[in-house]
Amino acid sequence: MADGAQAAADVKNNWGRCGDDDERGTLNLLPPEVVKAAAASIRTGRTYPLGIPIQAEGVPLLDYRGKPMRLTLEDLTDDGSYADFGCKPGTGAHEDVMIFASHTTSHMDALIHVYEDYLHYNNVPAAAMRAMPGATRLGIEKVAGFAARAVLLDLVRFFDDGPWVEPGRILTAADLQGAAEAEGVEVRAGDVVLVRTGYLDMWFERQPNVPFEQAGIGFDAAHWLADLDIVAVGCDNAAVEAIPFDENDFLGVHKVLLVRHGIYMLEFLDLSAPAADGCYEGLLSVAPLKVTGATGSPINPILVG
Amino acid sequence: MADGAQAAADVKNNWGRCGDDDERGTLNLLPPEVVKAAAASIRTGRTYPLGIPIQAEGVPLLDYRGKPMRLTLEDLTDDGSYADFGCKPGTGAHEDVMIFASHTTSHMDALIHVYEDYLHYNNVPAAAMRAMPGATRLGIEKVAGFAARAVLLDLVRFFDDGPWVEPGRILTAADLQGAAEAEGVEVRAGDVVLVRTGYLDMWFERQPNVPFEQAGIGFDAAHWLADLDIVAVGCDNAAVEAIPFDENDFLGVHKVLLVRHGIYMLEFLDLSAPAADGCYEGLLSVAPLKVTGATGSPINPILVG
Amino acid sequence: MADGAQAAADVKNNWGRCGDDDERGTLNLLPPEVVKAAAASIRTGRTYPLGIPIQAEGVPLLDYRGKPMRLTLEDLTDDGSYADFGCKPGTGAHEDVMIFASHTTSHMDALIHVYEDYLHYNNVPAAAMRAMPGATRLGIEKVAGFAARAVLLDLVRFFDDGPWVEPGRILTAADLQGAAEAEGVEVRAGDVVLVRTGYLDMWFERQPNVPFEQAGIGFDAAHWLADLDIVAVGCDNAAVEAIPFDENDFLGVHKVLLVRHGIYMLEFLDLSAPAADGCYEGLLSVAPLKVTGATGSPINPILVG
Amino acid sequence: MADGAQAAADVKNNWGRCGDDDERGTLNLLPPEVVKAAAASIRTGRTYPLGIPIQAEGVPLLDYRGKPMRLTLEDLTDDGSYADFGCKPGTGAHEDVMIFASHTTSHMDALIHVYEDYLHYNNVPAAAMRAMPGATRLGIEKVAGFAARAVLLDLVRFFDDGPWVEPGRILTAADLQGAAEAEGVEVRAGDVVLVRTGYLDMWFERQPNVPFEQAGIGFDAAHWLADLDIVAVGCDNAAVEAIPFDENDFLGVHKVLLVRHGIYMLEFLDLSAPAADGCYEGLLSVAPLKVTGATGSPINPILVG
Repeated sequence: MADGAQAAADVKNNWGRCGDDDERGTLNLLPPEVVKAAAASIRTGRTYPLGIPIQAEGVPLLDYRGKPMRLTLEDLTDDGSYADFGCKPGTGAHEDVMIFASHTTSHMDALIHVYEDYLHYNNVPAAAMRAMPGATRLGIEKVAGFAARAVLLDLVRFFDDGPWVEPGRILTAADLQGAAEAEGVEVRAGDVVLVRTGYLDMWFERQPNVPFEQAGIGFDAAHWLADLDIVAVGCDNAAVEAIPFDENDFLGVHKVLLVRHGIYMLEFLDLSAPAADGCYEGLLSVAPLKVTGATGSPINPILVG
Repeated sequence: MADGAQAAADVKNNWGRCGDDDERGTLNLLPPEVVKAAAASIRTGRTYPLGIPIQAEGVPLLDYRGKPMRLTLEDLTDDGSYADFGCKPGTGAHEDVMIFASHTTSHMDALIHVYEDYLHYNNVPAAAMRAMPGATRLGIEKVAGFAARAVLLDLVRFFDDGPWVEPGRILTAADLQGAAEAEGVEVRAGDVVLVRTGYLDMWFERQPNVPFEQAGIGFDAAHWLADLDIVAVGCDNAAVEAIPFDENDFLGVHKVLLVRHGIYMLEFLDLSAPAADGCYEGLLSVAPLKVTGATGSPINPILVG
Repeated sequence: MADGAQAAADVKNNWGRCGDDDERGTLNLLPPEVVKAAAASIRTGRTYPLGIPIQAEGVPLLDYRGKPMRLTLEDLTDDGSYADFGCKPGTGAHEDVMIFASHTTSHMDALIHVYEDYLHYNNVPAAAMRAMPGATRLGIEKVAGFAARAVLLDLVRFFDDGPWVEPGRILTAADLQGAAEAEGVEVRAGDVVLVRTGYLDMWFERQPNVPFEQAGIGFDAAHWLADLDIVAVGCDNAAVEAIPFDENDFLGVHKVLLVRHGIYMLEFLDLSAPAADGCYEGLLSVAPLKVTGATGSPINPILVG
Repeated sequence: MADGAQAAADVKNNWGRCGDDDERGTLNLLPPEVVKAAAASIRTGRTYPLGIPIQAEGVPLLDYRGKPMRLTLEDLTDDGSYADFGCKPGTGAHEDVMIFASHTTSHMDALIHVYEDYLHYNNVPAAAMRAMPGATRLGIEKVAGFAARAVLLDLVRFFDDGPWVEPGRILTAADLQGAAEAEGVEVRAGDVVLVRTGYLDMWFERQPNVPFEQAGIGFDAAHWLADLDIVAVGCDNAAVEAIPFDENDFLGVHKVLLVRHGIYMLEFLDLSAPAADGCYEGLLSVAPLKVTGATGSPINPILVG
């Protein structure tokens, strides 16, 4: 084990809690009756798709992930190709091929995404990810998809200090609790906690000159959330956690949530529409693409408020 | 207009019904109160992700769409890359890039997918799709995402004649109605109707020697469904409709549903798990990726039963 | 035919000259004995690969063509995968997948690349290119590859007015002839004419703030070259022709050379090394990838001087 | 070092011969005067592009490398897009995007491709390849491109025992020498040796039922070639070496040639056309795409005979 590193195996974690072979983390803590109860949080039936567009320009993209491409596979120039198959004149189809990073725009991290001391959640070695097959364990296909109660904590509203939380601010447990109280909602086991910092609003307004810093949660908030046995945390920023990282520990909050507790992380979610409606509770469906062996997937979570 | 073709503009359709500029079709017929009512169909809270895996082998793929690829963007060989950014030894991340067709495995058709008499839904010309920008109207990003009541019609159970409906059988309105009655469910406006033919079960059992023919709905069933003002039809086969096509009219049912009525089509959905549980109703969330200008998207719909 | 357009079919061209079904253009005018004679132009044996790198940053790329990607297919994380096949410990392989535009960085246009009055070289309709199969005629695979005598015309040296020709300057036949005379070389039938404007030198020095304008040939030079029955023109800029286009006719020189005469165009070639050596003649090998149905290919021509 | 492995560092090799930092291997042993002399081997001027097509079907492809894709970027549906830029009606362009493995169909291995005892040519560690940046040393861009004398050894003709060499046969130094003698050619330092086994002829005739075994060179031939200080070996099979591997040592010949001697390997070359013409000598240009950090590149070598 690397010298000076804190061993993930030795700190508070969920490893072994759901079996030594478990690959789904906190999704094990979401029994059907909790999902059924979550449906009771639907008040208006208003539906909010939380994914932002996938395109080459005008959305936040990290350089090393490349630019998403949509390429044409079939179009009007193929008109007539199916005449021999009973295709009437004037009938045809359009299709594309898509190329993008697993972690492009709105996305979900698989449990294989981040490792600490060369270990992933549940003591899975970093070497379980291989270039050719991809993730041999903890891949995004193990998530399959889920629905849960979502609680939206609007920190922009709570702080009431402009259209977005100050870039770089590290959100604490007290901040999240304060927002929950102000909204009259409670975070429970099995929830997805959605944290709104206003980052995306800032990005769209200020692009292409967006500061590097982003507000996000720090260790204190991460530990509080982990203790609550939530299923996932979603945020409107790039990494859920603040940048610069809390205690300057690169991906520190990912290590607490994803690696140690098997709590999923959802990034670049557009939370402004439900926030504008004052919708702080609802049923959230999260549906990663089941790309076998992938380390994450773009998502477009559907919140029914 | 092509000689001999029936003009989509002249037959029963939904064009203009939601405005001449509408690009969302039947999603306009799904008000929040209907979604809220749909939540009442949740009985157990059991959650069924209906998407099948995206991978290069072992799933149904059409040759012309190419083989899905997952490629490694970042792995353990990049260990140490972030040391200068406060990254502790032993901490790192894995990421991928994905390449696949818009209509790969479980997917949703955008309204720009199929045209009849060179026209799409709501009188949009086929030329609204261009190779470079993609769909300039009716693209998948216009769907955004939705939730609705789902009714699962299990034709395999209804016919009770083996593990799958006979390949090539054209399902009629009477067949769908019969299955609904047998299950004690009712199809209503705003529903997503899920039709189980057993095709995927056959595919997985018989691959790679799968017959070309597939059971699916025909014109009679399509007209019945369109009259009910449903939002979408999902099926466990490649095209919702039977192959060979009803009346040998290539994509005929797509023209009735997608082109004329703006009713969405969801294909290659895995319906065996809810069918096995006798779960015939629930709240379904459908979340295409918002790839700007795309003609469809892989999906992994979440059914909460 | 579009109103106001000059019909390619009616002007001086090579259509039909090598047969009505010809798909190779001027390559028909390059018999083995001319290639053999070209070998005599080799003086020093110095070898110049004229292609620039293919990478996501630091090279000239057009936005609409996307960014090239190199993704890892197999690396050290796959160590041990072949142990069962007689692979000794410590032995392994690295492989990648590449994604880039047919016309990325240094590239060659296929005869299907540009059309005029909806016609390509040799009266081939623009509809011969279809989205699904790609070019059904005149695709890059018809080029296969060739070798020819190359003559390098260094306009930067000829004008002697700074490290690159003034952006936007339209080079004339007299300019090219002047450069040839100054260098003591002669352009002959079957040659590839390489025109150095210094554009790439400017690009690398000034990036990312490179002016839109580029020096390049105009109609006068194009007609002169076409009359000489050369095989191809290569240049160190984006389009061989000047931008803004001569007479403001979009792709005008492409129409004269590629469409009317079947003369190939090679773009973004790095001509500075042979120019620095005063190497104005040599044997040039041009080897597009034979991607079936493609409209062009990245190339890395090898000049032996 | 792995137990039981022979240390590449301890056996006969070219490491350090051209400097401890050398990344080009035997290309250092190819001075201009040798290239100039090679031009004298041109007799007829006939030109042979040795690359086979890149397409999804009908060419030899290894499953794990995926299927090549050519996708349409711009076509006739984009007609009119440039009207504002001086584009006349009826003028337009077609473009594509390509996706394929670095080692697809006819290709060249970079020196970073294979490692032995976790070391590449010139003592470069296997870890010099990283998923994100790709090859940080010995990448294909270091090759740049070259021209050299080529000698074609036609083993099919030499053995005179059918249209292809028996699959699995391990070719020896004596076999290669015998073929050279029969053809009246001599292998010299600085040459590219092209070995014809007839494998591709067999593949095209027998597909899709092609035996796994392939004729190719073994250790004896590899050592003989290495001693001659040749620059590269090309072959019409998948790996230059025989399969099953000589002494059942996975990639054993790659280790001798590529790893220990920095001799390049060119695979899946179509050698039937020059063989049919009895062209056993010529000038060969090899032009990999300079994809920064790549482990190899598709090639289409041009042989001028």
